[in-house]
Amino acid sequence: MSTHPLEEILHPQSIAVAGASDNPSTQGYNFTYHLLDYGYRGKIYPVNPRYPEILGMKAYPTIRDIPGTVDYVISAVPASAVLNMLEDCSSKGVKCVHLFTARFSETGRQDAAELEQAIRKQARKAGIRLIGPNCMGLYYPREGISFGYDFPREPGAAALISQTGGGAARFISLAAMRGLRFSKVISYGNALDFNECDFLDYFSQDAETKLILMYVEGVKDGKRFLNALSQAASVKPVIILKGGRGQSGARAIASHTASLAGSTEIWETAVTQAGAVSAKNLDELTDLAVSFYFLPPILGPRVGISGGGGGPSVFSADECEEAGLDVIPLPAEIREELKNSGVPIWDWVGNPTDVSILGDSGFSGVDMLRIMARNQNFDLLIAYLHEVPLSKKEGMTARLREEIKGYIKVKKESTKPLLTVVGERSLGIKDYRHWRWKLTGELRTKLIAADIPIYPTAGRAASAARKLLEYYQRRK
Amino acid sequence: MSTHPLEEILHPQSIAVAGASDNPSTQGYNFTYHLLDYGYRGKIYPVNPRYPEILGMKAYPTIRDIPGTVDYVISAVPASAVLNMLEDCSSKGVKCVHLFTARFSETGRQDAAELEQAIRKQARKAGIRLIGPNCMGLYYPREGISFGYDFPREPGAAALISQTGGGAARFISLAAMRGLRFSKVISYGNALDFNECDFLDYFSQDAETKLILMYVEGVKDGKRFLNALSQAASVKPVIILKGGRGQSGARAIASHTASLAGSTEIWETAVTQAGAVSAKNLDELTDLAVSFYFLPPILGPRVGISGGGGGPSVFSADECEEAGLDVIPLPAEIREELKNSGVPIWDWVGNPTDVSILGDSGFSGVDMLRIMARNQNFDLLIAYLHEVPLSKKEGMTARLREEIKGYIKVKKESTKPLLTVVGERSLGIKDYRHWRWKLTGELRTKLIAADIPIYPTAGRAASAARKLLEYYQRRK
Repeated sequence: MSTHPLEEILHPQSIAVAGASDNPSTQGYNFTYHLLDYGYRGKIYPVNPRYPEILGMKAYPTIRDIPGTVDYVISAVPASAVLNMLEDCSSKGVKCVHLFTARFSETGRQDAAELEQAIRKQARKAGIRLIGPNCMGLYYPREGISFGYDFPREPGAAALISQTGGGAARFISLAAMRGLRFSKVISYGNALDFNECDFLDYFSQDAETKLILMYVEGVKDGKRFLNALSQAASVKPVIILKGGRGQSGARAIASHTASLAGSTEIWETAVTQAGAVSAKNLDELTDLAVSFYFLPPILGPRVGISGGGGGPSVFSADECEEAGLDVIPLPAEIREELKNSGVPIWDWVGNPTDVSILGDSGFSGVDMLRIMARNQNFDLLIAYLHEVPLSKKEGMTARLREEIKGYIKVKKESTKPLLTVVGERSLGIKDYRHWRWKLTGELRTKLIAADIPIYPTAGRAASAARKLLEYYQRRK
Repeated sequence: MSTHPLEEILHPQSIAVAGASDNPSTQGYNFTYHLLDYGYRGKIYPVNPRYPEILGMKAYPTIRDIPGTVDYVISAVPASAVLNMLEDCSSKGVKCVHLFTARFSETGRQDAAELEQAIRKQARKAGIRLIGPNCMGLYYPREGISFGYDFPREPGAAALISQTGGGAARFISLAAMRGLRFSKVISYGNALDFNECDFLDYFSQDAETKLILMYVEGVKDGKRFLNALSQAASVKPVIILKGGRGQSGARAIASHTASLAGSTEIWETAVTQAGAVSAKNLDELTDLAVSFYFLPPILGPRVGISGGGGGPSVFSADECEEAGLDVIPLPAEIREELKNSGVPIWDWVGNPTDVSILGDSGFSGVDMLRIMARNQNFDLLIAYLHEVPLSKKEGMTARLREEIKGYIKVKKESTKPLLTVVGERSLGIKDYRHWRWKLTGELRTKLIAADIPIYPTAGRAASAARKLLEYYQRRK
């Protein structure tokens, strides 16, 4: 297989930021700052005729004034300045320009659409490839390139191909807190040159990527897209969120990235037939991403649930069943085992296991989880952290830490998929300092460090598990 | 209307905790501690023959040893000790016993079910009313009675009738962070005496309650329940979450509160016909609760959305439409107004309003929200906080504070329902100290202080809004 052109483009030896700035409220500042902040090791050239220096680095009036060659340019100049800049790029041997610059076809104006086409032609003539316009470009932690603040600095193995930059940033921060780490993220906007198919092709070959996530508003060429999707999905899991499912979403898309949205049903069918997995919103994209990232294949629907207390046990049973999982009654041999080991309330323990009734019985929800992990009747396990505010600090802290330690032990000892539920809350400013919610944070951090996926509710864990099951069943 | 018997029972002059304890890992400790901690102003009598003193208060060997009368007893003694305790209660003129005590019919054992019935008979003979058994009892902030830690101390106007205690505690903490405050919460477990109908009757009369929330696993008498529900729903909004919708949930219920779960479809139809609103899970119960609590009636489906950036604007348009709202194009008169006021990108601004394109245009998402608030074509507004990590601390802090200030101003100046979206994240331990997520907390706190409901996603805001619309349409 020949090397994909993006492989060289995404490993630039030097990056110029056209329209760099010292003003932190501009993207020209942000792009330059990120290169320093995330530790980009190549040469950085801020370009702006109004500054002699930007962020402590020498600034150049134009790209032409940069000594030596430039591989990659991030453009934050106005739309009207792009054609001139491309000429400068051409003289410097630039391989790729990422056009953060916007106000092209997405405005709906003819003159802007014409300018966009002129840019495409000139770039092609000069042999310069384009990412964008109207997009945030590249987040590549291994290379020290980023378009957002507080993205993880450690690299990982998930790639995201996203037409939206703001949505990508939101997704990265949601998913990063649940342990996802990225090989590369590309926000590609209007897709004037490189488009979703090129990125799919590239990531399907990319050794740093084991999972491909996509947010697509519209595709340029349906046939090529489905081919690229099938090919990529045959190599690694691909999860897609489609924007513009309804009329108003399609309208919002026209002014967002000038894409044409298609019919939802056709889309869903085509995506599934291509072997990819469709997500219905950002939350589900996140749930599926962490599931594929952390879990072994889910091969059957029979779920064992431990934890959560009486009411939450009922909720989780309902939600698992509604998601299409099978909450089987406790197998006879487990009931026998409980009885023989002298568990005092053995006849009251079930699946889900309501840990609130176990109390001082000497038998815990983790004990039950371990028994389920060893039993061949269960295909997957859900551990639901029992974190209701019914206990005082000392007791609750010790108990929950034990519970998490137990989950991690079960994960290490068993090959069964283990999903954990740790609730999210809309914390107010005082809650950030409260031991109870900080404890939840500590426990989440421990689970993630052990490569265990967490979900905000049992229902979301169950829905994700069901989609993984369907995915693995289709591939058999 | 005669006074409901619960009115006197819920205002006890004295409370004894049978099975009180100095050991913080017991409920006997917790119930006693809460009376002190939440500031109960009546007399508190810890009862336990093994302690001379509990939490600094004199402890009594039995209820009989308490000087004077006792109005209300919280029982944390074992099931086998309840009959004796009831005799003592009888001699002291106790009006109501809350049986936290469990291990009765929910165990599935005949002897336990028989003991439960014996307790019922004896209590009835002695004229003592029962709450429970197998439940957490009462949270009544105005009276200083609680069954959980960190529940709000300030009273409010939402009542919760819940068969589960753990689920109630989880709900209270979820909803409290989104601004809900409670008149009274009752966890009633096996409903041996007082049941869901009694509580419905009571709260429909209760002047402290303007909104009734319910979590029900099963009802004792379907006809009486639907009558009570219709009557209550004719006076104030009633929102119900039903547990045990599937087979496994029903099984979990049998061992949780020994209730019989019924068919989901029949339940949904009956609840809607009775004029109540059905919630499908704890998250939706929370969304609906804060919506009814804070919003004026929603009388039409036409929604104006401002904020969230490009991708999130597409998401919110899709999610609103899928929830059954109408994301109308920007009315001509608004486009005219934008053009005439010299907004430079007036032709690019739409509904949803993508604030990421507004930049330094001098026109903000809040300006758009204000225009939509004044326009008669919109029935409700959703403001989506643009909090993606694409800006540095100083700029983002100032901008988001301005945004929230604007939302609050619009809320004060307009009578239109205003829903706000502020994302939730699975914070890890370090995130609790990060300015970015603490800022989100600060902004949530400000919104809630201004009585504005917040939702974690646009989709959840939209679904709740749609259910309110249907509710108010049915009542017309």
